[in-house]
Amino acid sequence: MKCKRCGQQAEVELPSHNAAFCRDCFFVFFQRQVEKAIKKWQMFKPHEHILVAVSGGKDSLALWDILVKLGYRVSGLFVDLKIEGFSEKAREKVEKFAHQRQGHLIILDLAEEGIAIPWVVKYTRKTPCSICGQIKRYYFNHIAYKNKFQVLATGHNLDDEASRLLANVLRWQMPYLIEQSPILPSVYGFAKKVKPLYRLGEYETAAYAFLRGIDYFAGSCPYSKGATFLRYKQYMNQLELEFPGTKLDFYEGFLKKIGPLFQSSVKKNQDLHLCPECGYPTIAPQCGICRLKHKIKNGKE
Amino acid sequence: MKCKRCGQQAEVELPSHNAAFCRDCFFVFFQRQVEKAIKKWQMFKPHEHILVAVSGGKDSLALWDILVKLGYRVSGLFVDLKIEGFSEKAREKVEKFAHQRQGHLIILDLAEEGIAIPWVVKYTRKTPCSICGQIKRYYFNHIAYKNKFQVLATGHNLDDEASRLLANVLRWQMPYLIEQSPILPSVYGFAKKVKPLYRLGEYETAAYAFLRGIDYFAGSCPYSKGATFLRYKQYMNQLELEFPGTKLDFYEGFLKKIGPLFQSSVKKNQDLHLCPECGYPTIAPQCGICRLKHKIKNGKE
Repeated sequence: MKCKRCGQQAEVELPSHNAAFCRDCFFVFFQRQVEKAIKKWQMFKPHEHILVAVSGGKDSLALWDILVKLGYRVSGLFVDLKIEGFSEKAREKVEKFAHQRQGHLIILDLAEEGIAIPWVVKYTRKTPCSICGQIKRYYFNHIAYKNKFQVLATGHNLDDEASRLLANVLRWQMPYLIEQSPILPSVYGFAKKVKPLYRLGEYETAAYAFLRGIDYFAGSCPYSKGATFLRYKQYMNQLELEFPGTKLDFYEGFLKKIGPLFQSSVKKNQDLHLCPECGYPTIAPQCGICRLKHKIKNGKE
Repeated sequence: MKCKRCGQQAEVELPSHNAAFCRDCFFVFFQRQVEKAIKKWQMFKPHEHILVAVSGGKDSLALWDILVKLGYRVSGLFVDLKIEGFSEKAREKVEKFAHQRQGHLIILDLAEEGIAIPWVVKYTRKTPCSICGQIKRYYFNHIAYKNKFQVLATGHNLDDEASRLLANVLRWQMPYLIEQSPILPSVYGFAKKVKPLYRLGEYETAAYAFLRGIDYFAGSCPYSKGATFLRYKQYMNQLELEFPGTKLDFYEGFLKKIGPLFQSSVKKNQDLHLCPECGYPTIAPQCGICRLKHKIKNGKE
């Protein structure tokens, strides 16, 4: 197969785009998709300092890599979940990546915060994936705020976004649908959140990371076995295989045609106040993360 | 397994409703779902004469049966597509059903109209399923109009509606999404269109038809082999199997939460006029069906 751009031997085939590229032209393609996402959603300006949340996986390290390549000032944030046999391997990859490229890396240790994921699983009845997501968002916000970052970037790719959209659409989960966007504006002084890889599929970010020589962590979290979101990913993959281009059409069509319909119907939550313990916005007397920390502390005693 | 209503031995298990019923209680369940649909969408009033489009399959004959059982005045309409080895068998079942119950049946023969489906397939490049749907809608409208019916009912079930919604949502086909409803109001003097079975799945209509002793036609159209809509049905079935209740949640949630958002954004097509040949509303100088008829006539000559 020939490269669509230059006619040389192709290395990466992309049925979703009805294209194939050689290594160099694939890098051009990849970069253009990221630039298009940044420009279209006005994600950030050249002078803004970006905090990239990195897990050690292909997506977030590819994001860090491409943003630096595009000339942005970037720091990494790794939240160490303290999941045995998993977190230490991921952390090692992140530290190696940052060290090799002399990148600035912030590490937050959930055990030091009193809220390591295995403790959460042990002392509460929460579903691991959903509570882990909530804890990570909390610390992403806090660390960005504390270190005065205006932008927080995450490595969510098209597969993540399309499968989440499918799950939300099948039950018409309006609060989640309203929030599903490649950019969420700054609220309560927290950094705005952006997803510059939303136009690129999992296969594309993996190919990019591999071809760029990024040594990423490919393990999957032991708590995510059988998680529902993985099933929706498999459905989207089946659909994509049968009808190439479905993921991008589905997600972009939603952003273009349905997103604007929601804007007029969004009701802002007026009942939020700041958690007296940590200052995080909450509707309860105390925020969910502080409540969790107390639960763990009580459980341990 | 016990019947959820009366505790006797169950005959029909319905995982989507987390229920099982004996024969009599299943009939009650089925009837209530139809009554709920009619009432919620104000589909028709007791005095209105209903034209039911029947194909000979389980859904449309079950619909005719239940509407009569509910005391409505019903006539049947069978459009004979003239597909060899298929249409004559379906027609036989319909005629038998009408004869046994002394129901009033109108038959329209597409060969007599100069537009039998095999000719359409032979002399035009149209996709069979989509053009066949268009032709049927045309004659449903015409026959209802000519015979002064205010209501046209079709046997579309939850599987039809949910899988069509999935297909439309994956590409965000706005014109189709806007029209996706269990009721379409009367336009241009044509009968309003209703789908009283939209809350019942394919398995449920089949069980109803079987238990009511309806001798229906179970064959599938030779032209529909590999049709895309069948694949979406399979996807919905997979999802339903894994997450029971998905079909109804998906379709009802759409009607409740998204339908109203569309209403404000609908633009009525002002450029329609009546076809000079047959009087059907069209945006082209001549309507699509009249154009098709000429194409076939020219092809044959």
